[in-house]
Amino acid sequence: MRVLAFDVFGTVVDWHGSIVRELDAMGLGVSAAEFARAWRAGYKPAMQRVMSGELGWTLLDDLHRMILDDVLRRFAVRGLDESRIRHLNRVWHRLDPWPDSVSGLARLKARFMICSLSNGNIGLLAGMAKHAGLPWDCILSAEVFRAYKPDPSTYLGVARIFDVAPADVLMVAAHHDDLAAARDCGLQTAYIERPLEFGPDQPKDVSPRAENTLHAQNLEELADMLGC
Amino acid sequence: MRVLAFDVFGTVVDWHGSIVRELDAMGLGVSAAEFARAWRAGYKPAMQRVMSGELGWTLLDDLHRMILDDVLRRFAVRGLDESRIRHLNRVWHRLDPWPDSVSGLARLKARFMICSLSNGNIGLLAGMAKHAGLPWDCILSAEVFRAYKPDPSTYLGVARIFDVAPADVLMVAAHHDDLAAARDCGLQTAYIERPLEFGPDQPKDVSPRAENTLHAQNLEELADMLGC
Repeated sequence: MRVLAFDVFGTVVDWHGSIVRELDAMGLGVSAAEFARAWRAGYKPAMQRVMSGELGWTLLDDLHRMILDDVLRRFAVRGLDESRIRHLNRVWHRLDPWPDSVSGLARLKARFMICSLSNGNIGLLAGMAKHAGLPWDCILSAEVFRAYKPDPSTYLGVARIFDVAPADVLMVAAHHDDLAAARDCGLQTAYIERPLEFGPDQPKDVSPRAENTLHAQNLEELADMLGC
Repeated sequence: MRVLAFDVFGTVVDWHGSIVRELDAMGLGVSAAEFARAWRAGYKPAMQRVMSGELGWTLLDDLHRMILDDVLRRFAVRGLDESRIRHLNRVWHRLDPWPDSVSGLARLKARFMICSLSNGNIGLLAGMAKHAGLPWDCILSAEVFRAYKPDPSTYLGVARIFDVAPADVLMVAAHHDDLAAARDCGLQTAYIERPLEFGPDQPKDVSPRAENTLHAQNLEELADMLGC
């Protein structure tokens, strides 16, 4: 194992909690927990429209904005001017890390090349890394490959960029579908438990699955397992 | 100014000194200073073959190898097996920073988004950053844009990725041609003096030119000028 590639949303940063905190501070009079989940739920269908060719290549910032406009309508939020909507849309650049993420990544970085492999655009991921103090060696994004995960070109692209075999790359994610697609490309996989990814009122099943190479509660435990 | 984009070879790292040290340690019986300069001199013509369409898109690692094979022949170096040649070719991943680079970048990073903008491929730049401790917020490369500097799509690509106006980007380089191309795209420019880029036996003219926004001896002085 030489390169660790990390899913970001939900795995390294707490999108739900971060968005809820920002929405609550805005006082919009909606259920922030539901609003955040609705925004996130629009993500896969929007990417699907790009990958099917219905939409041309679109940065995640712009997909987030299309979904946000729709969610604002559905939740009947009125009175936000364009500059506040633009600012809210960039909350994805301001997501906070899980408590173990920065220290865990720092330990893993001492021994491995660590990179993001996220559907977020480069500017989003770089802004988030600066905000959250994520010590990436390298930010890799769907934008580099012009394809979203789970397209094989993204997982294989990591191996190609670092000139290593796919089995020398460990894909780290809190989502089994992401890991399954990486495994199909020959990568090793580590599942990270993030039971509260969707909020404390919607805990998710984080039971181990035998097909993953590793299963860890968090990034500190992953560092322990990898002898960092 | 919100984003600082750095040329890397010669501006942030000392390619000549680093390659000379490695060649001397190998004991090849050639003038290491001349060998290093010959290798580097093949770089622009090789990129030109790509940009003219004569060669398809090629990573700098592979261009370096093509040039290296030629330079080894011209300097009549024999007896290096494939694994040593491969290792030598990756010396570009192991270049050492100038003495002010790491501390200067760290100061600049506290106030600006700092990224590379280099014709090196992503894997090369990430390996070098890890080796040299370069604290990039983001590694941008010709590989992201599928075009080499001085193609305008590289300079304008930095502004696009960070969603800022070209004038909000400062291109930082020790080469006037790089800065001139950036300026033509509307970026601001900072010239960094690196009089010994080509070795102590070939000092280069580093006189100021009025067309640059800033002129600094090194990255610490640039941080001073920018109030970091």
